[in-house]
Amino acid sequence: MIVAFQGEPGAFSQEAIAGFFGPVETLPCESFEAVFAAVTSTQSNAGMIPIENSLAGSIHQNYDLLQRYSLWITGEYFLRVRHCLIALPGVQKSALRRVISHPQALGQCDGYLRNLKGIKAEAVFDTAGGVKMLRESGDRACAAIASCQAAEIYAMQILEEGVEDDPENFTRFLAVGLAPVSPSGDAKTSIVFSLHNRPGSLFKALSVFALRDIDLTKIESRPLVGKPWDYLFYVDFAGAAEEEVARKALDHLGEYASMLRVLGSYPRYRPEGKSLS
Amino acid sequence: MIVAFQGEPGAFSQEAIAGFFGPVETLPCESFEAVFAAVTSTQSNAGMIPIENSLAGSIHQNYDLLQRYSLWITGEYFLRVRHCLIALPGVQKSALRRVISHPQALGQCDGYLRNLKGIKAEAVFDTAGGVKMLRESGDRACAAIASCQAAEIYAMQILEEGVEDDPENFTRFLAVGLAPVSPSGDAKTSIVFSLHNRPGSLFKALSVFALRDIDLTKIESRPLVGKPWDYLFYVDFAGAAEEEVARKALDHLGEYASMLRVLGSYPRYRPEGKSLS
Repeated sequence: MIVAFQGEPGAFSQEAIAGFFGPVETLPCESFEAVFAAVTSTQSNAGMIPIENSLAGSIHQNYDLLQRYSLWITGEYFLRVRHCLIALPGVQKSALRRVISHPQALGQCDGYLRNLKGIKAEAVFDTAGGVKMLRESGDRACAAIASCQAAEIYAMQILEEGVEDDPENFTRFLAVGLAPVSPSGDAKTSIVFSLHNRPGSLFKALSVFALRDIDLTKIESRPLVGKPWDYLFYVDFAGAAEEEVARKALDHLGEYASMLRVLGSYPRYRPEGKSLS
Repeated sequence: MIVAFQGEPGAFSQEAIAGFFGPVETLPCESFEAVFAAVTSTQSNAGMIPIENSLAGSIHQNYDLLQRYSLWITGEYFLRVRHCLIALPGVQKSALRRVISHPQALGQCDGYLRNLKGIKAEAVFDTAGGVKMLRESGDRACAAIASCQAAEIYAMQILEEGVEDDPENFTRFLAVGLAPVSPSGDAKTSIVFSLHNRPGSLFKALSVFALRDIDLTKIESRPLVGKPWDYLFYVDFAGAAEEEVARKALDHLGEYASMLRVLGSYPRYRPEGKSLS
């Protein structure tokens, strides 16, 4: 079993892979699109991609890739994102002049970084990749922001844990594969559809679920650029698409939607004994 | 008239201010929160903040600030985000070794930057601020990514225009002020509410609009972290909150919602003769 992810060993996606798949082989990729390509070409058996973050919102780029590639969502995982300030062993915080990380991670630690007077933030293409670079350069005036795991992998020192501005920082990941799965029990289905912007059209679309007592777990409208008055909707609902009631709801939705795609049904993530807070 | 924004002169927010307010005085602020504080303390008469981007999604941080501060949304503006590669006059692209910009802008030009072999991306706290820094440093091996306006303000050279990966890159801005406005004609209202996660609760909530033929222009669910099965909803609807039909709908919504806040009613943005595409 090989699972592809964007980034270097020690990336948050790899942590999500371990949490979701357990101990499997992982395939680091340069971009999200490369993850989709690796699964499509069967170079890997699955991929793991971030889809929404509690601070930064939905990652529209990955929704776009889900529509462009013919892969299925096979599972979901929620990861608490904890950033660490990481340096070479023996380095003191007072010796630091630069901090490197991925732009999004730097953004999530913006307030913390502003308080580190005289220290310059520098963008690199990956959180864990920054730790690797730092290890190789041996630069004792530089720190990286990444996961604790990345610090362990490269045998580095954690100067401070939890340097993100908002402690309630979660990322939801999706597992993707070539074939759909048939979840039994507590399942979830993700769909994308578009509607012409007519009054009440969204209400009609949602009625197909409400009239059948199907619970929604996510809804998001995204204006279609170039068609400013039309919308794309992301909806997750409880249950598997192949259940009779869901099939009927989706048929019904097809009567209103100008486009409808089922991205996959998969087991709903339930933290075992762990609270999400 | 003084309008506060986050960033340095030449920031995209300042472009949005010029587009929305016309020629007014602007007040650069260090953070989004400083913009809210400047308006609250009447140091400025209004503020301009980005609220959602076509690639990066909603800026949850600014939704949080809208809820924490008692300001009103007084208008909206859509800005096409065009990034430029900017250097000192006379510098050739082949001489570049580093590119500086805000982490989000670096992210939006990720593909372009990966293709510039041998060039390092470096995060700074502001797009236009990076251009200013570059001007002051006189560094001929460094370029900045920012708006064309920033290049003009600091008398710099534009090496390449439109270096963003996705040409359909729009940011929606909101104008905020101490007092609500009473838009006549084509108006929009933004609200935030929370619902207990019971099957059909969202459908009931949306029925208050649909039953009154009120059109929605945005809907987004955001899981409440710490309360993983409860949700916050962002909804924009057509019309002003003080119109009788909207007042009734909001009263009705209050029967279902565990929290409800009207963030403001304001004239709907209509590009005059300009297409959004």
